[in-house]
Amino acid sequence: MGPGPSMVHPRVYEAISCPLVGHLDPLFLELMTQMQQRLRQVFCTENQLTIAISGTGSAGMEAAFVNLVEPGDEVLVCVNGVFGNRMSDIVGRVGGTLHRIDRPWGEVFDPREIEEALERSPETRIVAIVHAETSTGVCQPLVEIGRICRERDCLLIVDAVTSLAGIELRVDDWLIDACYSGTQKCLSCPPGLAPLTLGPRAIERLSRRRTKVASWYLDLTMIQKYWAERQRTYHHTAPISMNYALHEALGLVLEEGLEPRYARHRLHSRALMAGLEALGFEPAAQEGHRLPVLNAVWVPDGIDEAQMRRRLLDDYNIEIGGGLGELAGKVWRVGLMGESASRDNVHTLLTSLGELLTSNNESTQATAALDAARAIYVS
Amino acid sequence: MGPGPSMVHPRVYEAISCPLVGHLDPLFLELMTQMQQRLRQVFCTENQLTIAISGTGSAGMEAAFVNLVEPGDEVLVCVNGVFGNRMSDIVGRVGGTLHRIDRPWGEVFDPREIEEALERSPETRIVAIVHAETSTGVCQPLVEIGRICRERDCLLIVDAVTSLAGIELRVDDWLIDACYSGTQKCLSCPPGLAPLTLGPRAIERLSRRRTKVASWYLDLTMIQKYWAERQRTYHHTAPISMNYALHEALGLVLEEGLEPRYARHRLHSRALMAGLEALGFEPAAQEGHRLPVLNAVWVPDGIDEAQMRRRLLDDYNIEIGGGLGELAGKVWRVGLMGESASRDNVHTLLTSLGELLTSNNESTQATAALDAARAIYVS
Repeated sequence: MGPGPSMVHPRVYEAISCPLVGHLDPLFLELMTQMQQRLRQVFCTENQLTIAISGTGSAGMEAAFVNLVEPGDEVLVCVNGVFGNRMSDIVGRVGGTLHRIDRPWGEVFDPREIEEALERSPETRIVAIVHAETSTGVCQPLVEIGRICRERDCLLIVDAVTSLAGIELRVDDWLIDACYSGTQKCLSCPPGLAPLTLGPRAIERLSRRRTKVASWYLDLTMIQKYWAERQRTYHHTAPISMNYALHEALGLVLEEGLEPRYARHRLHSRALMAGLEALGFEPAAQEGHRLPVLNAVWVPDGIDEAQMRRRLLDDYNIEIGGGLGELAGKVWRVGLMGESASRDNVHTLLTSLGELLTSNNESTQATAALDAARAIYVS
Repeated sequence: MGPGPSMVHPRVYEAISCPLVGHLDPLFLELMTQMQQRLRQVFCTENQLTIAISGTGSAGMEAAFVNLVEPGDEVLVCVNGVFGNRMSDIVGRVGGTLHRIDRPWGEVFDPREIEEALERSPETRIVAIVHAETSTGVCQPLVEIGRICRERDCLLIVDAVTSLAGIELRVDDWLIDACYSGTQKCLSCPPGLAPLTLGPRAIERLSRRRTKVASWYLDLTMIQKYWAERQRTYHHTAPISMNYALHEALGLVLEEGLEPRYARHRLHSRALMAGLEALGFEPAAQEGHRLPVLNAVWVPDGIDEAQMRRRLLDDYNIEIGGGLGELAGKVWRVGLMGESASRDNVHTLLTSLGELLTSNNESTQATAALDAARAIYVS
């Protein structure tokens, strides 16, 4: 129940330990094709170039920037947490000129702020923003931002590491040009691959590059030939077992269906938050924009948060996340992602936390928390 | 029996499907420490910074260059196959000034050639060379090259993707400053991680960089803090399951012992090559420098090599590799790496190939091949 890796279904563990075949074996190439079809469904896109990058979510982030930003390109990055910061850092490394707008951590951007920033810097070619900020638990609305970018001939890059398959994300409808994710969040697959999709405008930008992509390993002009459905050209040896796992995890997502899956995440988050509030924890993210998949709460005064997380882990076998960056020591981040989003997990955490918060002579505080969660489940 | 991925031991399949823990879980941090100790033994090094990069072997290559080469640095790359070419390509992408020396594919470099190249370009700061060229099956002697580099204050980067744990490789004794590998060759682990070790001279070069490392994902100035044994600082989410697998695969290597493991590879290669020669296949790599782990042979005239490889795969369930680059269509590459290096595999390939090469009315050619292999095993 941390900010990922989330729990993994037994079928995915079974898939990851299937016997290897070669990375050019016809069986594996067929699995790649199927996986691409499944990824397109989950991203809600028809983009041909929808693939799994051979690295974790951060490799997906780097792949998006290193391929789409050329030295000197102006890039607007919207920062309201750790992962917006990371995008800014990468823009500098790949030689882009960074424009950056900031919101306090835990708040979302108003599309007008982005519009104004683009008016101030009309040469901006790319806008980058995080959909689900894993460091703060905030969910950024994206719908209008895509339109604003189209009007100004900007590409829109969206970080969907924590949102994909957990909350609504519509790459084509929302006019997103490049979108990446990780496997270990709401896809409930072990970490190690980064789903990535590039739309036609991004592909065009890529094909018109004046310079070589700075990274050989992440160079999509070559990688796309390995993922092309007709003639697959060797680039690097794909992580076969991880691809087996992702293929199966995507199958589970689609068997459940995207809408029921989103609804499941919402339900268990409401129950969890009701219980946590009964225990004295206040939500940390802006009201109306709280992520169901990553529930951030302020740690009340007087609690040794690191020690209590350690006791949860050692005595109750439950992992939750501490704060990152400027929120370190101040918030907890409770993941309800994919397989982890269950009534069982909500009850277990509330019960355990209720016990830990109860001093010796009181009756456990868990009762009130469980009652609050139950009220959500029966409603 | 292709050029990797090689076969995987059941214990490694079991390890890769173990339940996930978090990437900062005390259990996982302990596994990282153990894995580093095991990697040091296999690399024959005491280098503190001995880790697994979260990507395949090519990510290891890129990590070595992007961290150690700064824009404008002069780099000498020795090219006698596909992977030397790839190193040259990467040097350009990271802004290095490339000096390159070439040998015909399948031949090795004489240390004097490197010495002469360094005399022509005395500002060279790095020499890069492939130990075991997967595209040609040639094994490059390294011993003198390290000394030549030290005398000229050059760093030596060695590609050990196909050699590590299959043939002798002594990072410290041979004065190698940076060395990387992949998991899916002689370590017999699924692909997805790149073992990497950096010696003190490389660390010093890294700490004195004037510019940020161009890749955030592969930036060792940050990654080394996650792998530091005292205080592990989050950088990116490690591929947990792959690390479980590598930890177990390294355990198997050390249980067998490095010397017996090298000897096993040599034995089965001798038997295989004797059998293949009996079938009319001539070795493609320079005599005296043939890799036991990757046996490259010329395909005799009159054989439709692609069709025959396809029949081996479809009818006999055996994968072998075709040629890469300028050797495409001309050679076969037969891997005997890690778990794949067995008498059983040698017999199976020779029997199957003997059948395929026999026309209807003859008795099978396999007999001669098996006799030749047997002569090696009984000697």
